[in-house]
Amino acid sequence: MGVGARNLVVAQSGGPTPVINSSLRGIIESARDLDAVGTVYGARHGIEGVLKEELLDLSAQSAEEVALLRFTPAAGSIGTCRYKLKDGQDEDYERVIEVLKAHDVGYFLYIGGNDSMDTANKIAQLAQKRGLDLTAVGVPKTIDNDVGDSEFKLIDHTPGYGSVARYWMHMVQNANEENKGSCPADPVLVMQAMGRKIGFIPAAARLADPDREMPLLIYLAESPCSLEQLADTVNDRLRSDGRCVVVISEGFDVGDLGKVKDSFGHTSFGSSQLTVTQAVVNYLNQSGLAAKGSARGNVSGTDQRHSMAYASAVDLDEAYRAGQKAALLAAGGESGFMSTILRNEGPIYSVRYDKVPLPDVANSERSFPADWISADGCDVTDDFVRYARPLIGDDMVSLPMVDGRQRMTRFEPIYAEPTLAKYVPQGER
Amino acid sequence: MGVGARNLVVAQSGGPTPVINSSLRGIIESARDLDAVGTVYGARHGIEGVLKEELLDLSAQSAEEVALLRFTPAAGSIGTCRYKLKDGQDEDYERVIEVLKAHDVGYFLYIGGNDSMDTANKIAQLAQKRGLDLTAVGVPKTIDNDVGDSEFKLIDHTPGYGSVARYWMHMVQNANEENKGSCPADPVLVMQAMGRKIGFIPAAARLADPDREMPLLIYLAESPCSLEQLADTVNDRLRSDGRCVVVISEGFDVGDLGKVKDSFGHTSFGSSQLTVTQAVVNYLNQSGLAAKGSARGNVSGTDQRHSMAYASAVDLDEAYRAGQKAALLAAGGESGFMSTILRNEGPIYSVRYDKVPLPDVANSERSFPADWISADGCDVTDDFVRYARPLIGDDMVSLPMVDGRQRMTRFEPIYAEPTLAKYVPQGER
Repeated sequence: MGVGARNLVVAQSGGPTPVINSSLRGIIESARDLDAVGTVYGARHGIEGVLKEELLDLSAQSAEEVALLRFTPAAGSIGTCRYKLKDGQDEDYERVIEVLKAHDVGYFLYIGGNDSMDTANKIAQLAQKRGLDLTAVGVPKTIDNDVGDSEFKLIDHTPGYGSVARYWMHMVQNANEENKGSCPADPVLVMQAMGRKIGFIPAAARLADPDREMPLLIYLAESPCSLEQLADTVNDRLRSDGRCVVVISEGFDVGDLGKVKDSFGHTSFGSSQLTVTQAVVNYLNQSGLAAKGSARGNVSGTDQRHSMAYASAVDLDEAYRAGQKAALLAAGGESGFMSTILRNEGPIYSVRYDKVPLPDVANSERSFPADWISADGCDVTDDFVRYARPLIGDDMVSLPMVDGRQRMTRFEPIYAEPTLAKYVPQGER
Repeated sequence: MGVGARNLVVAQSGGPTPVINSSLRGIIESARDLDAVGTVYGARHGIEGVLKEELLDLSAQSAEEVALLRFTPAAGSIGTCRYKLKDGQDEDYERVIEVLKAHDVGYFLYIGGNDSMDTANKIAQLAQKRGLDLTAVGVPKTIDNDVGDSEFKLIDHTPGYGSVARYWMHMVQNANEENKGSCPADPVLVMQAMGRKIGFIPAAARLADPDREMPLLIYLAESPCSLEQLADTVNDRLRSDGRCVVVISEGFDVGDLGKVKDSFGHTSFGSSQLTVTQAVVNYLNQSGLAAKGSARGNVSGTDQRHSMAYASAVDLDEAYRAGQKAALLAAGGESGFMSTILRNEGPIYSVRYDKVPLPDVANSERSFPADWISADGCDVTDDFVRYARPLIGDDMVSLPMVDGRQRMTRFEPIYAEPTLAKYVPQGER
């Protein structure tokens, strides 16, 4: 670090991905070479760690443990959170500035989705008002690929998406082998994908079968189909192929079937709802459509966002570089931007790392392109495949193993000395 | 093949594993060098393929496609089935003998669990009565590790188990990173393991954490715990660790909570039951035990038995050799045996391939050793870890990839010419 170097705080927000730690690593390793940057701190459990003044010293960790972030999924290393700095939570905002001041923080990097970019922007603005020279930069992250705009101009794709897309490619390829090999006993396999509002994740199932050789049906939350239509299509596939694999978004509308009564006869909502998959499986079985056998369902849940074995090497590399870019933007004093990945024109896949204003990202909303959903509503088009194929890479990532287990980053619990009074975040009072 | 060589039929039965095709490959590749064996046929969809005279010519397939069986999970290549030759289905049994006679089959190899060994044995006996010189040999296969006896004398472990054990090691390691990194928002993750009656699969979760550093709870179907006790233990872990990961058998008794009413108020059973995981998640959330946050659940279902990426190299090798051994037993005329894997004594893991009489296997029943369940009922002991650790191997298997997808076996549809009248299996009439 150079003379006058100031410290950097990085925080993560929202659900994890297999590559979020690669962005973190890109920041830590870049900062080593940046004269303007002093110590890099990781806020424990995201913005809550800032509020509670829990700042893990990442510069003090061994180079080996930092490098192993590439093979460490999710956010176990420094933690993430769902805690949001809402408008009006002024005390929280002031506390953030107070903590950053106390630790001579000149750079605040926030890894997250649209909401996080909004938060980062507000922190930058408040810091300016309070006379703190703070550079706030965002780093994109989400498995849903819902950051930015629908025209892919602010960002082509979000780090994290390529890996969950690859997960679904593997899932469907392997599941198809089981479905094909099974007797009439189990002709229908329903698999539930994340992406409650936007269909990029279930769409990736098509990458398992770009030539459409499998009896594979794909339903996004946006698919213009009813449960009855879905069942009819499944039945058609049973007649033509004797089996089928259904990938369905957790956000697909199953109507009242998602509401069940418990053993006491009370209607249960929320946590007690059947999963979409269970509702579809039950409907297929009860309607006798999966005749001669039964439908069954897999709900892999969080597995799709923390399965390191299925991480895309392309995604890992890009996440790292998006982190690097953010560190460079910060060191250059370019506050109020998010580092971004833009795809270069032309037939050969390549990207460039750039910056976009945080407010542009915060105010944007991406939707799955309507013309990427097939006319029959149960598939996605080749245009989607052309978009997503490069993101999943080619070879599998080779995970370091020790004694039959994955070797993951284990940081030493070295924290910045707290200097302020204890604080309870407003949302936790 | 030599003069007087006779043909071999191999069939698969029951649920698939990531290594069932390795046993098939061991048989096919061994048969090439055995003078006594002519053409190797794969019965399409198990015993149903014999009944329907659908015999895929495996000797006519390319060496490359046969070798790729190592990386092809489940039973998509020749198919499996749940169809059983029950006692009293005499027509079916007679038809099997008729088909085997028609194709000059001298060797019948049946890959499966206890029931399949019983079927293989009965076919051998009937063949003898009907004057068909048939050598019937069994090949062990099941993810549940429930073949053979509880003293591990008939077989130490079943091919397929090592891979699902490795799957759970990876699952829990990765899930623990997410659980650790999550906010109080998601403090409890419940993951459902297969093994309805026997606990070897959920037990394997302990391989992710042999030193007991995670807040990990493991419930087998055999665990002497009620749902209330489980919830108390989860609550204890929330107090001590702020989070916990619960691996639970699909066979864990959740009592009436597994029964739900549908939206019309009818009590639903069978296909409409909530999964054990959903019942536990609902119970935890409704009882407020996962306080300050919510429990969530993953039901990875069939994924655990067809995820090729998590296959154990040890398991793949052993499955291959169990297939080889069966082919050698067949060629040697040793009818009425199952090829088996026995562990050698001593501190260094090694096995030998041997034979055990089919009736001994068919009449045996394995249970999970009671003294491998911890006293508090929510863990397994170090003795289990010592038993299971060698089975999952060390490095990950490197899967061949082409254009970003797994390269799996694709056999040509070359079938033996049918010579008999069509036949509808008794169970399908």
